[in-house]
Amino acid sequence: MERKRKRLQSDMGWSNEASITVQGLDLPGDILGKLNLGDFAFLEIKGRKPTPGESIVFNAMLATLVEHGMTPMVIAARLTYLGAPESLQGAVAAGILGMGTTFAGTAEGSARLLQEAITKDTTQADLPGLAEQIVARHVASRTSIPGIGHPLHKPIDPRTPRLFQLAEENGLSGKHVELMKLVASAAERALNKPGQLPVNATGALGALSSELDIPWRLCRGLAVIGRTIGIVGHLAEEMRNPLGREVWERTEEEASSHVRQS
Amino acid sequence: MERKRKRLQSDMGWSNEASITVQGLDLPGDILGKLNLGDFAFLEIKGRKPTPGESIVFNAMLATLVEHGMTPMVIAARLTYLGAPESLQGAVAAGILGMGTTFAGTAEGSARLLQEAITKDTTQADLPGLAEQIVARHVASRTSIPGIGHPLHKPIDPRTPRLFQLAEENGLSGKHVELMKLVASAAERALNKPGQLPVNATGALGALSSELDIPWRLCRGLAVIGRTIGIVGHLAEEMRNPLGREVWERTEEEASSHVRQS
Amino acid sequence: MERKRKRLQSDMGWSNEASITVQGLDLPGDILGKLNLGDFAFLEIKGRKPTPGESIVFNAMLATLVEHGMTPMVIAARLTYLGAPESLQGAVAAGILGMGTTFAGTAEGSARLLQEAITKDTTQADLPGLAEQIVARHVASRTSIPGIGHPLHKPIDPRTPRLFQLAEENGLSGKHVELMKLVASAAERALNKPGQLPVNATGALGALSSELDIPWRLCRGLAVIGRTIGIVGHLAEEMRNPLGREVWERTEEEASSHVRQS
Amino acid sequence: MERKRKRLQSDMGWSNEASITVQGLDLPGDILGKLNLGDFAFLEIKGRKPTPGESIVFNAMLATLVEHGMTPMVIAARLTYLGAPESLQGAVAAGILGMGTTFAGTAEGSARLLQEAITKDTTQADLPGLAEQIVARHVASRTSIPGIGHPLHKPIDPRTPRLFQLAEENGLSGKHVELMKLVASAAERALNKPGQLPVNATGALGALSSELDIPWRLCRGLAVIGRTIGIVGHLAEEMRNPLGREVWERTEEEASSHVRQS
Repeated sequence: MERKRKRLQSDMGWSNEASITVQGLDLPGDILGKLNLGDFAFLEIKGRKPTPGESIVFNAMLATLVEHGMTPMVIAARLTYLGAPESLQGAVAAGILGMGTTFAGTAEGSARLLQEAITKDTTQADLPGLAEQIVARHVASRTSIPGIGHPLHKPIDPRTPRLFQLAEENGLSGKHVELMKLVASAAERALNKPGQLPVNATGALGALSSELDIPWRLCRGLAVIGRTIGIVGHLAEEMRNPLGREVWERTEEEASSHVRQS
Repeated sequence: MERKRKRLQSDMGWSNEASITVQGLDLPGDILGKLNLGDFAFLEIKGRKPTPGESIVFNAMLATLVEHGMTPMVIAARLTYLGAPESLQGAVAAGILGMGTTFAGTAEGSARLLQEAITKDTTQADLPGLAEQIVARHVASRTSIPGIGHPLHKPIDPRTPRLFQLAEENGLSGKHVELMKLVASAAERALNKPGQLPVNATGALGALSSELDIPWRLCRGLAVIGRTIGIVGHLAEEMRNPLGREVWERTEEEASSHVRQS
Repeated sequence: MERKRKRLQSDMGWSNEASITVQGLDLPGDILGKLNLGDFAFLEIKGRKPTPGESIVFNAMLATLVEHGMTPMVIAARLTYLGAPESLQGAVAAGILGMGTTFAGTAEGSARLLQEAITKDTTQADLPGLAEQIVARHVASRTSIPGIGHPLHKPIDPRTPRLFQLAEENGLSGKHVELMKLVASAAERALNKPGQLPVNATGALGALSSELDIPWRLCRGLAVIGRTIGIVGHLAEEMRNPLGREVWERTEEEASSHVRQS
Repeated sequence: MERKRKRLQSDMGWSNEASITVQGLDLPGDILGKLNLGDFAFLEIKGRKPTPGESIVFNAMLATLVEHGMTPMVIAARLTYLGAPESLQGAVAAGILGMGTTFAGTAEGSARLLQEAITKDTTQADLPGLAEQIVARHVASRTSIPGIGHPLHKPIDPRTPRLFQLAEENGLSGKHVELMKLVASAAERALNKPGQLPVNATGALGALSSELDIPWRLCRGLAVIGRTIGIVGHLAEEMRNPLGREVWERTEEEASSHVRQS
């Protein structure tokens, strides 16, 4: 039995002798010097240029994800660079491989929560009830609610009000943002933790991704874009002031000190 | 004998309960809503915000690297996503691992060429002689000169004049750009290929990186940043219209058709 | 408040001027020339050398995972090698990144199924009832049962009887193997598919991993070990007869043929 | 102009309903229970089964590469596992990405040295002269000679005599091993470092790879195979006793201690 062949078709971009076309636009004429890097990321993901308001909010969302200090990801990237300095791409790849459920799970999870709850028929009046249902479901299954609370940033995550402010100012604060806030306050009531479970940055990102109609499965992609920039920044610092070898040597010495003989 | 410990110190960023500091700036107040993604990449790599002109040029440089159609990198990313859809970061990592010498070598190479030729004492008058020396050295060793000529884009690479125009308009067209152009024309004369070895996009990127005083070893990092965005874009398309399985099945069928029995 | 430091301790291996110790054994004297590669993998994972019977079964298990022809993983590795031939490790990494839930999920899943069902108090007489419960649970939740059935190999997966025979001959066919077989026959009855849902190779591997008391979370590690060897084999072939570029060019041409001009 | 299509053909393996063929052998009947994992790696790379002597030597070669204690690679793998425990393949990939020039360069380099020096016309009598030439060339260019000397293992690397003994016992100690030894003694004379530049393990591996007619470009592949097994072993330990978080927290604290406020 013959397998039916599927046509391979992509609309991302192509080129010929004289021109380079990306998403239907002329790269040199329509994009270079006209779209900033965040706008181009929006174009790649959404297939259209952002409005001025979307540009501000989307650039801010990605910027939130760039730099988180000396994370496990950047330490892994620095250690990999030590072993393979000729392959910068390998060090960056090693770094982004740590962007799994532990660190990327909650933005993805909160976007999913909101996108599965809100349909095109959902009205403003439905939101408080939806928030109660979401909280009740998580309490019943004893699972944590993604996007609220933070181990370090208390009482509030300073990124959240700024992201929500930018969304508000640019007309992008809709039902998903509203529901995210309602979930946080419903959780505080249900768990009797007043003022302790505010929307965190990943919750804000999940809500804003949803406002921009970005599927929750792609939220991890936004995190990877942001972190790639941060990892390249850390590798630039590592070239100037290498730390990888020191992390290695300390760890190795201590790890085998219980058996090591001179 | 005791090993001397090195102090681990990083100046990229850190946070406490109430604040998040990146490169000495307050993330929510100084960066979100104020720096676009390319500007933030500049901040991460250079340790300072770009000037308005640097912002335009640097964003354009990164934008040049985002989308090159159906490259080996994005096919590898799509095939990896097929096997591990739960780990988008793995598919992106697989993609950027192809950003090695074949594709990233020439931007890196042309930046290196220029940065090793031009010192702080180099004058405008020295440039033609330096160009002749560079070409002569490559001709003698029968190695190709990075940053000139293009297999597809003829007679010119349409990205180059646009990038150079943006640099010119923003006061960033200096000796490195000049030397790159001189190398191209010297090569055309030496190899008797008039009009056939113009500066290509990687040569333009190498020159502009040098104008921005970005070490050539980091040029591959710029490519990785750009391509990461493009790969995420292709994975967004792959989610909507999967091609990976079809590429796999066709390749597998043909690869074993000489031995395959029903 | 001070964070309590945890001591970093590892028992995998260490070395000094004169000796190299791995898992408490002298590498040159106790391992080289005495343990084959599969035995060493067993030692690394279990912390002890295998018995002769365990050696045969464990080497066969890993061998099952090495070579599956032109999979998405090896195509991704070949495409990555095309872009970064100087970084063979990157091409291998790109390949194994495809070893996610699509391909590694079922061995992991069947091992988990068996390990969660059988406790130290489980008797032979309990097994048929456990099999019925497992099948009923999956039927109720409309989820597929990992480790049974195969899209290509019908009516049986030829690897399964061989793996089970080796386990039997070497005294390693216990309750987990028995339960796996019972699950397959219970599923055939419940779904009315007689002879159509035999234990497949991943089910056999899940059962044998469980017999060797290897946690189900590590099953993917066994797959990665096997596939790494297969990917290196494919890259050796790619060096002799490159296919990556041809896969790329065909895909690129077709993908943009609907818009491509000249 | 039409591009000429290349036929995609691979001889690694394929399968149909009833059978699975690898390198022309029946997987269940000819491989499972008959070839150990190192033998299978030999089959994948060389396209034929090893002789009994080749089996012993090749398994020992790979075994040399498995476990080197708490290397940067395994620390990177542990840190990546912390971020993405659901993607074991990602943690392994992050680990092997560190297998670049710093750690894999010398086995590759010594194999290349030997393979470029010895042709099919080289006689035993030519070897001392070749060794002198190799050393003189490296002294002249002030580059280090791969495969000799060791920062820790002094006066000898304990793996080398064992690997050379196994090669000798199994009839695999030929001109490449001889030349490697001659290079070491010539270097000690030329650099006036008697007894200080013995053949190290990477030199022994380079020589034995050459005796087995494995191209030097594949030596890194052998290292990747060995290290993959070691990394999976370390991840098994990490599951039982996690260290990644502690390495992260200590590094992060110290890295920002100069700016951190409560």
